[in-house]
Amino acid sequence: MATATSVSEDSKPANRSALDRLSGFVAEDMERVNRLIVERMASPVALIPQLASHIVAAGGKRMRPMMTLAAAQLLGYGGDDHVKLATAVEFIHTATLLHDDVVDESDLRRGVDSANAIWGNKPSVLVGDFLFSRAFQLMVDAGSLKVLGILSNASAVIAEGEVQQLITANDISTDEAAYLQVIESKTAQLFAAAAQVGAVVAGATPEQEAALAAYGLNLGIAFQLTDDVLDYSAKQAELGKAVGDDFRDGKITLPIILAVARGDAEERGFWQRTLEEQDIRDGDLEHAMALMARHGTLAESLERARGYGKAAREALHVAPASPLRDALEDLIDFTVERAF
Amino acid sequence: MATATSVSEDSKPANRSALDRLSGFVAEDMERVNRLIVERMASPVALIPQLASHIVAAGGKRMRPMMTLAAAQLLGYGGDDHVKLATAVEFIHTATLLHDDVVDESDLRRGVDSANAIWGNKPSVLVGDFLFSRAFQLMVDAGSLKVLGILSNASAVIAEGEVQQLITANDISTDEAAYLQVIESKTAQLFAAAAQVGAVVAGATPEQEAALAAYGLNLGIAFQLTDDVLDYSAKQAELGKAVGDDFRDGKITLPIILAVARGDAEERGFWQRTLEEQDIRDGDLEHAMALMARHGTLAESLERARGYGKAAREALHVAPASPLRDALEDLIDFTVERAF
Repeated sequence: MATATSVSEDSKPANRSALDRLSGFVAEDMERVNRLIVERMASPVALIPQLASHIVAAGGKRMRPMMTLAAAQLLGYGGDDHVKLATAVEFIHTATLLHDDVVDESDLRRGVDSANAIWGNKPSVLVGDFLFSRAFQLMVDAGSLKVLGILSNASAVIAEGEVQQLITANDISTDEAAYLQVIESKTAQLFAAAAQVGAVVAGATPEQEAALAAYGLNLGIAFQLTDDVLDYSAKQAELGKAVGDDFRDGKITLPIILAVARGDAEERGFWQRTLEEQDIRDGDLEHAMALMARHGTLAESLERARGYGKAAREALHVAPASPLRDALEDLIDFTVERAF
Repeated sequence: MATATSVSEDSKPANRSALDRLSGFVAEDMERVNRLIVERMASPVALIPQLASHIVAAGGKRMRPMMTLAAAQLLGYGGDDHVKLATAVEFIHTATLLHDDVVDESDLRRGVDSANAIWGNKPSVLVGDFLFSRAFQLMVDAGSLKVLGILSNASAVIAEGEVQQLITANDISTDEAAYLQVIESKTAQLFAAAAQVGAVVAGATPEQEAALAAYGLNLGIAFQLTDDVLDYSAKQAELGKAVGDDFRDGKITLPIILAVARGDAEERGFWQRTLEEQDIRDGDLEHAMALMARHGTLAESLERARGYGKAAREALHVAPASPLRDALEDLIDFTVERAF
């Protein structure tokens, strides 16, 4: 059976270029977003831009602001507010990353030292709060109460998802529905809101707005499912992340849930000891990955991701065919196939 | 010389009744705020209302929402939105308390176990984020972009002040101006915004709006100055707080700044060892308090607080004399004189 680790990204250059293609459509706007990010993280308190620029510079793919920009462009928007909203979306994302790293006690973020590892938890919490506030200031500048409503709702749901994730940690009775609820809340809501506010600012019809939100939501679920597979894949090392962090943290993700469900009594004992009792010994991660391979749970999780990708693709049909729409479709493939 | 610890609160019942008198004016609205707090902290994720209600129930004086309600009433407001805004203000305050306790590693908050002591840092960070989001949802409900601008600015400045406070910690070269900048940002900005949005919702003139903001700002500075004196006062025990927390944390507050400035070389060595090098031994807190008494720095800090209280009182003159205005003036006395 093919596993998520069997093919390196380099052998599939098409995936990388899918993201590049979409980037090309929004390149000019994204430049403006990057400038606005720098401008709005400024503060007389020097540590704030210092710490914020560390995490922003670490970069990431800027997928969320890209969705805001692309959605606005897809619907023919000709104004400036989408740049502010895309920046607000990235600030909310960055704030949640800072707080996540504190919550997860992470030492690495995208292959470099995490902010909390360098400066400690305290400034990470507070600079997260600062960026969150800046996000709302940007939305106020853009002047749309509707957008403020969408993104304040999304922020509340993200926090709910993160708390729910804490609760399900180390609990192997967590089922697939509970897991999907968590990833929809903590990850997919912001993708959905990012695409939706791009549509709103462009004066979308209710149908278009709902379709763009559905595109973002389904893409976001596919994204997180793939991320949770990647945690057990050799690709992780290439991305500068440790393999098996979720296992060590006792995070109950779909590859685990399926493996627990399909395991015999002995396997169940293994999951109980490692995930619930957090008694992890040498060789346990390898054994866990062997069990996931035996039950095909990484491949099946990716299959699930492809299903959500399909839903995202269908939602896009609200817009007439165009090269930009094609690029948004390709982004779905990039999102899932980066696992290979 | 009179010290902050020489008179118990019970011997000055007038102080307590000053707060009660203002409470009386806004009692009905505050009941609605308390109901809205409970309603809006609800979440399908049970831990959220559990943790949030712990900190909200611990209570506090609800001074900030009271200022929103009183400012609106002072200007004759007859609508409902001030209740939403007062709740939003209290949620922002509660969110900062949750994050502060994580940052300060506090075990006690208002005499009961802090949320982070009970549930750990992780949910405290995330429930803070949740309440912060809920605050913005409430402002969106109230429908005023201007209010959203005022409170998102205030939130950003609060975070800046908290980071600045981290930076000045353990640095005895911190001067009074830097200290005032910190307390204006971390504390007084929210008092100012709370009063200002009450004025805005009531359709204030620019002059009235500025005056109410000035009232809140000056009251807030007086409040924090007094708080920083209380940290070295026997009154602390009555409030359920440990005496000398700031000393142990190396927080550089005005009583310390004045004592350092007035101390001789030997005293400077003491402050260096205890506050900068954090080498604190038995009897050091008592010695620190003796030095503050010798240089009269607690009394002088309170004198400074009274000065800001005077400015707050003068700002109120924008409104015609009325029993409510009197009660807002009395609140100033309560704020400063609670140190006795």
